[in-house]
This record gives sequence, structure tokens and C-alpha cells, in this order.
Amino acid sequence: MRRPSKPVTVGGVTIGGSSPIVVQSMTKTDTGDIKATLKQIEELREVGCEIVRVAVPNDKAARALAVIREKSPLPIIADIHFDYRLALDALEAGADGLRLNPGNISEPDKVAIIAREALQRRVPIRIGVNAGSLPQEFKPELPLSERLVEKALEQIRFLEALGFDLIKVSLKAFDVPTTVAAYRSIASKMPYPLHIGITEAGPPPNGLIRSSVGLGILLNEGLGDTIRVSLTAHPREEVTAAYEILKSLNLREHGPILVSCPVCGRAEVDIAAIAREVEKVLLKIEKPIRVAVMGCVVNGPGEAKEADIGLACGKGRAVIFKKGTKLRVVEEEDILSVLVNEINAFSA
Amino acid sequence: MRRPSKPVTVGGVTIGGSSPIVVQSMTKTDTGDIKATLKQIEELREVGCEIVRVAVPNDKAARALAVIREKSPLPIIADIHFDYRLALDALEAGADGLRLNPGNISEPDKVAIIAREALQRRVPIRIGVNAGSLPQEFKPELPLSERLVEKALEQIRFLEALGFDLIKVSLKAFDVPTTVAAYRSIASKMPYPLHIGITEAGPPPNGLIRSSVGLGILLNEGLGDTIRVSLTAHPREEVTAAYEILKSLNLREHGPILVSCPVCGRAEVDIAAIAREVEKVLLKIEKPIRVAVMGCVVNGPGEAKEADIGLACGKGRAVIFKKGTKLRVVEEEDILSVLVNEINAFSA
Repeated sequence: MRRPSKPVTVGGVTIGGSSPIVVQSMTKTDTGDIKATLKQIEELREVGCEIVRVAVPNDKAARALAVIREKSPLPIIADIHFDYRLALDALEAGADGLRLNPGNISEPDKVAIIAREALQRRVPIRIGVNAGSLPQEFKPELPLSERLVEKALEQIRFLEALGFDLIKVSLKAFDVPTTVAAYRSIASKMPYPLHIGITEAGPPPNGLIRSSVGLGILLNEGLGDTIRVSLTAHPREEVTAAYEILKSLNLREHGPILVSCPVCGRAEVDIAAIAREVEKVLLKIEKPIRVAVMGCVVNGPGEAKEADIGLACGKGRAVIFKKGTKLRVVEEEDILSVLVNEINAFSA
Repeated sequence: MRRPSKPVTVGGVTIGGSSPIVVQSMTKTDTGDIKATLKQIEELREVGCEIVRVAVPNDKAARALAVIREKSPLPIIADIHFDYRLALDALEAGADGLRLNPGNISEPDKVAIIAREALQRRVPIRIGVNAGSLPQEFKPELPLSERLVEKALEQIRFLEALGFDLIKVSLKAFDVPTTVAAYRSIASKMPYPLHIGITEAGPPPNGLIRSSVGLGILLNEGLGDTIRVSLTAHPREEVTAAYEILKSLNLREHGPILVSCPVCGRAEVDIAAIAREVEKVLLKIEKPIRVAVMGCVVNGPGEAKEADIGLACGKGRAVIFKKGTKLRVVEEEDILSVLVNEINAFSA
């Protein structure tokens, strides 16, 4: 059951309520390099990214933001730390959303100025707390998960008192149990949408695994309205991973699904090679087709029948199924070509 | 809270009870090719695999099993389908465990013969139900998750009636919510350890993501005593992924942990390149060291201080921390060499 939340809209994309869980990422270019940043935003759009965040660490980046915002095909969130004036510059540049870190901008008068400007423009603010930037002196008697929660609630209460409620909240740590505990705790304490992520998860494959475990647990409990997978890699991989996580829990459809057996001593055909080739073909398909590539008679026919297009191999030959019906038997050397033709025909 | 279970021992490795969650994999070689199979078992042992399963689809494989068992450094589980005589041959060959699929061996007289022989040798049996090989006519009125549960319980009751209780149970499907529902349901209906996995998850990265989501949810609920990640890839990747899943939930220690930021427009040093190099160095380290590679002053110093060895970059220079204490400031060109030296010294 998804947690109910009060939706906000970022540049036309609604987050929270009953909206689909939104996939976002962040550019890794120098924001001041307008061309490189717009190129990366386009690469992110191509793989299905729905909102993009850019760092605004200095005046040059803030100036670039106006051009980036104008030319970007996706809503832009400005990531602000330390200097509240950069938040004002980002709003002036047309940012669709702000991310503020209460760990480094918390002076009431400065937050109040930002909130007033943001409210006038109806621009949402994400209160983005991160374990790595939580002041050491902040409630040291509490466990880390509750320190994250308390820091966010402090800022939420302050914004609410100013009449500002276009809020999203994130509470990120590297440690999965800490992150899960924090989101669970805050979920019932405030009504705003949750932006979820595991911070600094590192490069793939390990960063993928850690993010999938953490986000999988949260999403499975109905927590999370927008997701960002943090990887030390091209941000395109963050977006494709986010969709795979959502697909594995049947929360979004996005392109093909490949079911393929891990291969064992029972396989009589080179299934791994076929699966790799099929994967390449599927990369070009946008339709949510389900393909099964199976090596033997144990689970092969069963899984192949459940797929849109399924392959179940035997000794030197294979059966191809379409929507549960046996389509034809093919010799080993023809398996790949026939399978690819059927996949392409189905997705056409 | 981990689910209590009645432990069983497979070739000296205890599964269930309060034992650490056991990591297992399966060879992908032709089992009849003794040399290739033993080589792959050794490759699996090197990355920390604790139990290995081999397919026994025919007489040749059953004969090879005796030699493999004798020379293997790891306990061997024989994977049996369709033909109950292969289970008897595998026991005769010295298998440390059997996996039977009630979807294709369920005739009472045959299961009884296997159970009698296994009991005499104190060899555990995994009742391994798989969505792909569940007979279509079996309780079609129930949802798939409950069909998996009912099929396993049927076999459990039958074995118990024969006085056989050296049991483990798995209920695998490709669909994560189905798999999670099945394990949750059976957890309170019988006392035996759970072998968990998401079947036919496909090649990495998508297979890794699906497995991490599914196994992460189960493990986080205390379900799972042994884990196998099924990937269409070299089985070594199944083992390293299994440990990363367990590490992300603090359930096992196994080698280093790398915390590294995803990089953004704020980074002033090439963090991704440093992270990639550090990752290569960490591959050779067995000690559970925690290393942080961070790009800027936002979360950098905080995360770097939490690590055993931490790097927080600024403009053209970086600070290296050891166990929370600032060790030294290094110029950009020296970052990698100094960092690697400190990591190696710490792990020595």
C-alpha cells in the first residue's frame, strides 16, 4: 500500500499522491559548461529520466542555469548548499525546483527569504538531509536515523510556519538499515512526498546492489514518490537502474523484461550467448515486451509460455513460444535469428 | 529479527538457526566434464562461495560426481529433476546435499526411497519449488505464491511422515512480489531453513538489480538462511553479488566497503577515476576496511571521517582521514598514490 502524500508539481511533473513514482537523476558535468550539461540532460531524457538536478555551487553555474533551463527538455532542480543567495539566483534563472540541505543552510532569516521567493513562483523545495553533512553537534544523543528525521522536521516546521508547503523530503545515508529506519520514522510524521535514495553507494555493480536493496525495501513498504539512484558512473546508468528497480516491483512499466536462466550443467545450448544477443536487441525496443530465454526442460517450457516471446532449449533444438502458444521448433543454428525476428515482429 | 529455524548441516556447513547466512552458487559447466567443473568450483571458493550445487541430469554426470565430491574443497549439492534414480546415484557418489524439485519428482514411492537413503547418510534435502516447473493442474484456483507454498508443504508433510526432517525449502519465481509473498507465507507454516533466490533474473546489471530488490526485502524481514543469486553470468559474479547484498544489510562482513559520491557539478577533482582505481586496489584486500572517496565539501568531510580511510577533495587538493582523524593534505597529483598507500598500510 503506497503511503498517501500531498503532491507537488515540479515543472509540470507531479510527485506524490497517486502519480507514478518519478525517476530522476543529476548531471555530473560542470554546470557552468552549458553545452556539456545540456548534452547530458538530453542523454538522460533519451533513457527516460523525468526530472534532472544540477549542482549550483557558484555564480557561474547560477548564470548558466538560465540558459540550461530555457533549453532543457526536462524540469530542472537546482542543488544548493551553503550559500542562500545561490538559491535566489536559481529561482531568478527559472529553476523548477530547489534542493536545500538543512545541514548547511539553516539560518531562519535566510531560509525565510528563499521560501518567500519560491512561494511566489510556486517552486517546490526539497529538504534534502544527508548523513554526511549533518552537523556533529545536532542531537548527538539520538541514533543517526532519528537525527536525520529531526533535522528534516525542524526545517519542515519552519517552512510551514511561513505558509510554505510545496515540500519534498529526503533522508539519505550510505547505511541501508539507517536509511530505511529514517524514512519509516518520518513517513507518519509529515504529509509531504518522499524523494528516496541511498547516498554515495559507489560504482556499479556494488553501488547498484546497495541501491536496489535499500530502495527495494522502501518501495515495497509503499515509501517513495520519486527515486534517484546515486552511482559513481554516467547518470544514464542511474536512470536505467531506477526503472529496473521499479519494474522488479511492478511499480512502473518501461521497455522490455528479460527472463533468462542462470545456465547450469543441464544446458545443451549456449544460453548465455543467446541472452547477451537478445539483450542487445531489447535495448532498442521501447515497448514493454517480456522475453524468456531458457536453457532446458526443467523450467524452460513453463517460463517460456508465460512470456510474450519465449525460448525453451533442448538438445540441439529449441521451441519458440508466442503468448503461451508453441510457435515453432527450430534447429540450434537458427535459434537466434528466428528469436530476434519474432521479438522484432512482436514489438513492431 | 531473523526467523528462528531448525538448522541442518551440509558437508560441515550449518544452515539456519543462528548460523551466518550461507552464500552458495551453482556450476555452469557440463558436470560430466570433471576438470572444468572442479576448476569452476575452485574459482567459486576463491571469492568466498561456501556451498556449491551441480546439475546431475544424466548417468555421466552422476558418475563424475563421485570424483568431483572427492576433490572439491566445498560441500556439493546435487541438483536432481525428473529421475529419482539420479538422486540415489548422487547419494552413492557422496553428495553432501540433494535438491529435489517437487514439480517433477513427486511420486510417493520414489520420494520415499530417496528419503530413506538420504536419512541413513544424514544428507539434507532441499525442497526446491520453482514457478517455471509447477504442474499447471496443481491448485489452479490459488494465486501463484500460494501454489508454490502448497506444493512445498505437500512434500514437507510427506517427508515428515517418513521421519525425515533434514529439510531446507525454496520457493522461487521471477516475479519479486510473488516470491516475497510465498516466502512470507511459508515462514510461519514450517520450521525449516529457507534457501532464498529470485529465479531466472537474467544477466547483469538487470539480474543483479532484480535479485537485490527481492533478496533485500526478504533478508530485511529476517527471512533467508542461505542465498543464491541467479545470474546469466559467470557464477563468481553470483557470489560477489550475494556478499554485497548481505553487507548492505550488515548481515555479513566480507572484504572492503567503498563509499563514493556519484559526482556532480560541484566536484573539482576526477572522483570517478579515483574511485575506479581504488576499487581495483580493494579487490585484492580481504579485510573488511571501509574506504570513502568523496568529491566536495558538502558530504565529503563527514563521510571521510566515518571511514577507516577517507578522502575529501577540494579545489586542487584533498584531505585524507584515517579513523576519523585528519592525516594529511595532499596536492591533486598525489591523491591516488597517497590514498592507495594508506589503504594498503591499513589492511596490512
